[in-house]
Amino acid sequence: MAVPETNFSPPFNITRASHVIVTVRDLAESRRFYTDVIGLLVTHETDREVYLRGVEETCHHSLTLRQTDGAPVCEAVGFRVFRDEDLDLAKKHFDATGVAANWVEREFQGRTLRVSDRAGIPLEFCASMPTLPRLHDQPQFHRGAGALRYDHVQCLVPDVADAGRFYTDLGFRISDYFVDQPDDDDPLGLFMYRKNNPHDMVLLTRPGPQLHHFGYIVAESHCLFRALDTAGGIGFAQCFERGPGRHGQGHVFYVYFRDPDGHRVEILPPPIQLMDFDDKPARWHSGNRFTWDLPPPEKWLHEATPFEGVPLRKPAAEQKLFSLEEFLSAAR
Amino acid sequence: MAVPETNFSPPFNITRASHVIVTVRDLAESRRFYTDVIGLLVTHETDREVYLRGVEETCHHSLTLRQTDGAPVCEAVGFRVFRDEDLDLAKKHFDATGVAANWVEREFQGRTLRVSDRAGIPLEFCASMPTLPRLHDQPQFHRGAGALRYDHVQCLVPDVADAGRFYTDLGFRISDYFVDQPDDDDPLGLFMYRKNNPHDMVLLTRPGPQLHHFGYIVAESHCLFRALDTAGGIGFAQCFERGPGRHGQGHVFYVYFRDPDGHRVEILPPPIQLMDFDDKPARWHSGNRFTWDLPPPEKWLHEATPFEGVPLRKPAAEQKLFSLEEFLSAAR
Amino acid sequence: MAVPETNFSPPFNITRASHVIVTVRDLAESRRFYTDVIGLLVTHETDREVYLRGVEETCHHSLTLRQTDGAPVCEAVGFRVFRDEDLDLAKKHFDATGVAANWVEREFQGRTLRVSDRAGIPLEFCASMPTLPRLHDQPQFHRGAGALRYDHVQCLVPDVADAGRFYTDLGFRISDYFVDQPDDDDPLGLFMYRKNNPHDMVLLTRPGPQLHHFGYIVAESHCLFRALDTAGGIGFAQCFERGPGRHGQGHVFYVYFRDPDGHRVEILPPPIQLMDFDDKPARWHSGNRFTWDLPPPEKWLHEATPFEGVPLRKPAAEQKLFSLEEFLSAAR
Amino acid sequence: MAVPETNFSPPFNITRASHVIVTVRDLAESRRFYTDVIGLLVTHETDREVYLRGVEETCHHSLTLRQTDGAPVCEAVGFRVFRDEDLDLAKKHFDATGVAANWVEREFQGRTLRVSDRAGIPLEFCASMPTLPRLHDQPQFHRGAGALRYDHVQCLVPDVADAGRFYTDLGFRISDYFVDQPDDDDPLGLFMYRKNNPHDMVLLTRPGPQLHHFGYIVAESHCLFRALDTAGGIGFAQCFERGPGRHGQGHVFYVYFRDPDGHRVEILPPPIQLMDFDDKPARWHSGNRFTWDLPPPEKWLHEATPFEGVPLRKPAAEQKLFSLEEFLSAAR
Repeated sequence: MAVPETNFSPPFNITRASHVIVTVRDLAESRRFYTDVIGLLVTHETDREVYLRGVEETCHHSLTLRQTDGAPVCEAVGFRVFRDEDLDLAKKHFDATGVAANWVEREFQGRTLRVSDRAGIPLEFCASMPTLPRLHDQPQFHRGAGALRYDHVQCLVPDVADAGRFYTDLGFRISDYFVDQPDDDDPLGLFMYRKNNPHDMVLLTRPGPQLHHFGYIVAESHCLFRALDTAGGIGFAQCFERGPGRHGQGHVFYVYFRDPDGHRVEILPPPIQLMDFDDKPARWHSGNRFTWDLPPPEKWLHEATPFEGVPLRKPAAEQKLFSLEEFLSAAR
Repeated sequence: MAVPETNFSPPFNITRASHVIVTVRDLAESRRFYTDVIGLLVTHETDREVYLRGVEETCHHSLTLRQTDGAPVCEAVGFRVFRDEDLDLAKKHFDATGVAANWVEREFQGRTLRVSDRAGIPLEFCASMPTLPRLHDQPQFHRGAGALRYDHVQCLVPDVADAGRFYTDLGFRISDYFVDQPDDDDPLGLFMYRKNNPHDMVLLTRPGPQLHHFGYIVAESHCLFRALDTAGGIGFAQCFERGPGRHGQGHVFYVYFRDPDGHRVEILPPPIQLMDFDDKPARWHSGNRFTWDLPPPEKWLHEATPFEGVPLRKPAAEQKLFSLEEFLSAAR
Repeated sequence: MAVPETNFSPPFNITRASHVIVTVRDLAESRRFYTDVIGLLVTHETDREVYLRGVEETCHHSLTLRQTDGAPVCEAVGFRVFRDEDLDLAKKHFDATGVAANWVEREFQGRTLRVSDRAGIPLEFCASMPTLPRLHDQPQFHRGAGALRYDHVQCLVPDVADAGRFYTDLGFRISDYFVDQPDDDDPLGLFMYRKNNPHDMVLLTRPGPQLHHFGYIVAESHCLFRALDTAGGIGFAQCFERGPGRHGQGHVFYVYFRDPDGHRVEILPPPIQLMDFDDKPARWHSGNRFTWDLPPPEKWLHEATPFEGVPLRKPAAEQKLFSLEEFLSAAR
Repeated sequence: MAVPETNFSPPFNITRASHVIVTVRDLAESRRFYTDVIGLLVTHETDREVYLRGVEETCHHSLTLRQTDGAPVCEAVGFRVFRDEDLDLAKKHFDATGVAANWVEREFQGRTLRVSDRAGIPLEFCASMPTLPRLHDQPQFHRGAGALRYDHVQCLVPDVADAGRFYTDLGFRISDYFVDQPDDDDPLGLFMYRKNNPHDMVLLTRPGPQLHHFGYIVAESHCLFRALDTAGGIGFAQCFERGPGRHGQGHVFYVYFRDPDGHRVEILPPPIQLMDFDDKPARWHSGNRFTWDLPPPEKWLHEATPFEGVPLRKPAAEQKLFSLEEFLSAAR
């Protein structure tokens, strides 16, 4: 199945990946991880929920942690639409195309519309949140990585071409896609964006749907080290999973952490700007990827967060993934 | 005159500030300044012209230097529209609103439409340029600041509210504006944007129209020092004008240079992201600006590049500008 | 008077500049400045004294703040000798050379010997302090600049050649010296060191003796910006005096602050290493200094901290100092 | 066998690790690696030799590459003594203690004395080299990591306590040592220094003697990324071996490369300062090491450069080394 085509006249205006909601088993410990290692600020909290935002963000929250007594899951992946009327256009569009779309109540959000994408990922759209002052230039409030802003979400799905079409129909453009062999058609990875950088929603072929990670932008590359040192210093060293590395497509550097419940979070400096009509999807395969970065460990390849109540499906064909373990073994 | 209002249904889709054309008296020396201190890459050159781009840019050029035997000027300020058909919409719009709009030939650009804004600034719009590979992750090609990409242009005009209306009518949003006293209406500075950061076009009240500076994004704050050290090392120390500092509104850090002809160029790390409908224009006055940055020297306040063949007009009222010279004198 | 010669067989082993004691009028406010902007850690405090150290330092303190009800002064400039027996050698040496040397009691220091140098600067030598763990890799304890370690002290004296001889006799080497005109003999500035970088004690010709500043090393250049932003964010913007700049001899970058009592403190990334016998003193004059850095403002040139109870003497000849004010005035 | 004790009255004054000589099979390719990835400057070259130095170094060379047609080896590890007369003291000392010490001719070095240490490592001592200007503040000459200066050498030896005694007798101090279990006596790693940071000579227990790596200081942490990106960009991606990481004792960050012949070179930002008599050797074991850094891959643990003509001996007891491979396997 081929790489889907962007609809440049989308039915409503999605502007960016905006937030994610995950459940955690120890709210205090998760709060400590996200505030002290990642550097998020608490906007609001109760004994069951913590709302957090990056230090540059004016929106009320980009991460919501919810206490659970069960297994930790992702409850929803959020996108921002430009204006309130875009929500009505969205509702109309989903109704017309047979996608169940329901208004849901969310604290600290304007009207919120909930749907599932073709792969079963629970999405929610909203146009506004209460706003707060930016604090990116006030380092007295920064901890750890001092994460600036929520950037993107990466999900695992059994068929990225099929799942991706949901997004390209809504106007998402493709910055990059991966195929296995140089002359393959079938994409195994899709980097899709609405705002002016390479990713709002990334899809990889794996059993899914699952949340692979969400990413926060940090100011500069040294913030990666600051996050790591802080994690080491306050008892979260075991949360470090991968990096510092340079993404294969060259967008930017990265570090991956697993939070205390295993939810994966990436921190990355500001990536490239991508916005011209001339910017065509870049095609990557085993033969042309950027080369100094080491392959990911098995866990990064295969572990992820389930979506609440959504069953897993396997990809049609098994995919061979090159891991750090294999790289090291081959290097001997 | 009040701060103009953004038209959120603009007649055509301008996506970003894209390029600038200036004339220089010694092409080789200017080329050396922009490649070795600012770090631009030469895409094409003849003995009369040099086309340059930032290391991250895929577009053919964002700066064109042209040899002149006269006084150095700015020939045009360029904006990118999203698709070729936006140019037809633009032509139609300008014709309908009585703005002279002419198709001009530009090498290495698609169709190009030229107009003058309400202040007389010569603008040109195009939808495409030949593309080249990004080289931001290939430091073997980086020199000096290693400038990533063209970001914005700042112009001086006698009446920013009036001049700004041209842009807000075309969909530019306002990130920030300056007034003199806390309760003033009349804006003395307007920061306007189409892409997702605070500035594509900035206007300040002064005799005009003049080009005050254009700005390139650099990767990280240490690149400011690298540019300065390189300037010192290769004979361009006297081109350093101001900084390193933090902009008064807190967007980001900066350094200003004057090129060998006195054209001013700013380098700045990636500034804040700005894109939500909730992001309202921030209002600044003498009482609420960010405070550690020192005021600009007189030259920064008053010297600028003329636009070719465009006469200067003075602001209606004289404005008192606080300079570094006054600050130092008051501090004694 | 010529540049003094280093005695390479000094009577005792001074290893480095180690600490400074200043008095302040508002202990709480000064504590806040040094912990939150400079990033020092409090090792011990009472209601009359605060002992501070850099985050990398194992020594108990490198800065002591003492509450005063009078005018703020510097009480002593401290140097570390290698071993306790070096203090006995020092005492013997000073007794033999007619320099009054007295044992003084200092809390949190081993035996401490106090003398005045030839210019009247009150010095104290000690060999040990209680030690504490290094915390440079524990960013959870870092604030502001996250200053790593005390590095050097700069003093103003009426005759640097004469004053400097005290230090070169004790084994200080000269990294750099300034003269006015290229063929002058008389040094107007002396950079002297014992440890392996360009400065433990710097002397400049001015009315003196006075403490011009003391300097702390920060990890990287971006820490300069973090200190400035923090100062701006917590109400110490007016404490920023000069920079970020590159020192004229090229050692490294700098920012200067004035603490709430006007004591000047420099922060600087790690400078060059200097330790070979082959490293001869570098000679600087108005014609060969590094060029992009702007000259210092008048206040930096002329304001300083008096030493407690030590009268000022003027230099024999008046010196013309080039200030930022003059530079800006000449540039018009 | 216990950790050896420092002789604080050494027979002559070694000041620092100064240089290393290795042989290479393709001089042009090795030259390209060290100049373009590591950033060294060529001081002198013939068709059989290249002399290189760091951009901050005034000494003529810190790395000598020699063309070989055989297997690549390390010919000598160099240390600097303070003054020429220290060489005579050294000769006298080695003669008196039955260590064969011979004067050898080295181009671009003053008198040079050659000995083998107790483990068979070929050492050479010299007091001077021709000097050249520092270029650390001239980025127009920097490439890749822009390495500032040679810092240390790490060697593998079968018995570090025995081998280390050679150095502690010559005045080397111990910053850190490793044991296996918390209550072990026998050191498995010794970090020894003469200059004011944690390492001039590091010894690890392994079959030896072998050269494990030599290290160059880079200016800031982002230089690690610049080196890696450059390596990727110019065809040396496969030379990347390990990092970026934070050393277990917390001294500083690191990246390891293998040059085209497999010689290992480390780049690291400026580490901690270490110089007080109060600074006691830090004791590390499996239970108290800094924790976020991942273990080294098998190759880092076991591969090294032989010394020319020196046979390998095995440690008395086999040592269990924890590798990245085991870590990943255990993590599954």
